[in-house]
Amino acid sequence: MTNSILEGILENDHRILSRFISQIEFNNAVSEDLLIEMHQYTHKAIRIGITGPPGAGKSTLVDQLIQVLREDNKSVGVVAVDPTSPFSGGALLGDRVRMNRFIWDENVFIRSMGSHGDLGGLAKKTQDVGDVLAASGKDIVIYETVGVGQGEHDVAKAVDITVVVLVPESGDEIQLMKAGLIEIADFFVINKSDRDGAGRLATMLRSILHSFSKEDSVCPPVMNTVAAKGEGIYEFKKELMSHLDVMKEKGIYEEKLLQRHRDRVHTLVQERLLNEFWTSERMKHLEAQTESLDSIKSSPYEITHSLLDVNNGG
Amino acid sequence: MTNSILEGILENDHRILSRFISQIEFNNAVSEDLLIEMHQYTHKAIRIGITGPPGAGKSTLVDQLIQVLREDNKSVGVVAVDPTSPFSGGALLGDRVRMNRFIWDENVFIRSMGSHGDLGGLAKKTQDVGDVLAASGKDIVIYETVGVGQGEHDVAKAVDITVVVLVPESGDEIQLMKAGLIEIADFFVINKSDRDGAGRLATMLRSILHSFSKEDSVCPPVMNTVAAKGEGIYEFKKELMSHLDVMKEKGIYEEKLLQRHRDRVHTLVQERLLNEFWTSERMKHLEAQTESLDSIKSSPYEITHSLLDVNNGG
Repeated sequence: MTNSILEGILENDHRILSRFISQIEFNNAVSEDLLIEMHQYTHKAIRIGITGPPGAGKSTLVDQLIQVLREDNKSVGVVAVDPTSPFSGGALLGDRVRMNRFIWDENVFIRSMGSHGDLGGLAKKTQDVGDVLAASGKDIVIYETVGVGQGEHDVAKAVDITVVVLVPESGDEIQLMKAGLIEIADFFVINKSDRDGAGRLATMLRSILHSFSKEDSVCPPVMNTVAAKGEGIYEFKKELMSHLDVMKEKGIYEEKLLQRHRDRVHTLVQERLLNEFWTSERMKHLEAQTESLDSIKSSPYEITHSLLDVNNGG
Repeated sequence: MTNSILEGILENDHRILSRFISQIEFNNAVSEDLLIEMHQYTHKAIRIGITGPPGAGKSTLVDQLIQVLREDNKSVGVVAVDPTSPFSGGALLGDRVRMNRFIWDENVFIRSMGSHGDLGGLAKKTQDVGDVLAASGKDIVIYETVGVGQGEHDVAKAVDITVVVLVPESGDEIQLMKAGLIEIADFFVINKSDRDGAGRLATMLRSILHSFSKEDSVCPPVMNTVAAKGEGIYEFKKELMSHLDVMKEKGIYEEKLLQRHRDRVHTLVQERLLNEFWTSERMKHLEAQTESLDSIKSSPYEITHSLLDVNNGG
């Protein structure tokens, strides 16, 4: 069974890809042996993160980017990461309509991933799904964040190059810095650049980035696009790939690769430990210690001590 | 020493508050015994979360809210949570300038908290600092998120009532849902409501919230303000307090209190476990297993198995 799923993945069988990814998304007894076997096939793909505040037109930009990559005969996988919405029971697909023009293209695979209330697990699943798409032979895997929240950091940690998409109204310097986007960005795109302030924001951003750049780091490029009109897209793709080459030359690409690898192992080890710790007996103990308003009289630190001591004693 | 720090906190000695909070913020050997002793004094304060996308004018709104609360003779603590910016070496204080008019008011204590690269620890520190402000006798403790990211969920989990601040341009229904703000919001404020679309957004929001409301849940109120002009602030404060009473009547307030308590214990237990697990020997082992590009050939799942097996074997 494992072998035929792996074969299906390697052969880019969309039906099998879809089912396996659903298993991952819904925490459905995914075979780790399979993921281990699959690992060797996951190194070729270039991983690009597309992130930034809601309303910046990320989906439109990704749609246009897929188009120009297909013109270059590249195959593309997209993982749209949506940390939200137990409401919808899954990721919102409304704006995926735009990307549906690729639905019959065997060389494009698009998937939205919801958290289903398990925010902590989303980063790991995102990386696993990206690996599956890489193993299916996709030249490029795009990770797109939907909405705000932890998603941006999760994506930045999963990719080779993180693109932050802004709009001319994002203009306040303090807002940008506060948004923490400058730390994670390898590349900036100012979309909807037919609006006022587009040029001003680009100038200001280049100036901030320059003042923050250290000696052997690389300064993130800043570009303007109007994705809805298809403007600036070819230039964006060209600059993006070119900047990735620069990051490789400077060793930054390899650093990220290694760090990513380390982080994944660290996370998996911790996950395994915690799974082993939380036996149903301990869970019940925790419930009992925190089930009534009376328990609020005790400090969380106090209750923690008692829980751990009990466990050590017996 | 412990006793005199606690005394200083209970007496609202700003110098002592400031130093103790710095200890918490910089992970500086904070006495858990002190936190345990302090716990009984932390129950009186009302905890309000002010969150939402950057640029919505949250700081201005908080500043105005402090003003009207002071007119009511309430004392106020503010924890401004900034998950970002190792760049600045601490939270950005630029926009705290507005709040500096309260700097000599003994009944107002404002503190910005940065993550200093330790995003995981920020939620816990935020709650601890909020508790310190509560113990100092503050009637209201406001937790304000700065920027985007995990901060919004961390704050929502720390407070009695979460206010989401939007602007008229936040109008896209899909954006709102994607942003996951609807799930965490107990109250909506549409700030900068002198701009076009303010009324439209309020109407739309009420309509969405109504369609999602379940039978015994409470529908979040939606209000318009222009904080920079001081408009709508008295009404906001009045509605906010009134809604809190409704949440108490419906038992929602107590549910949150209990859940918050449980979550804190759960988090502390896990933190203690992981601290105990990661001995320097195991850390070195992990480093060795992930230090070169060669190690990338092995799947993270594979390396995890070997790490845990080694530990179990010896």
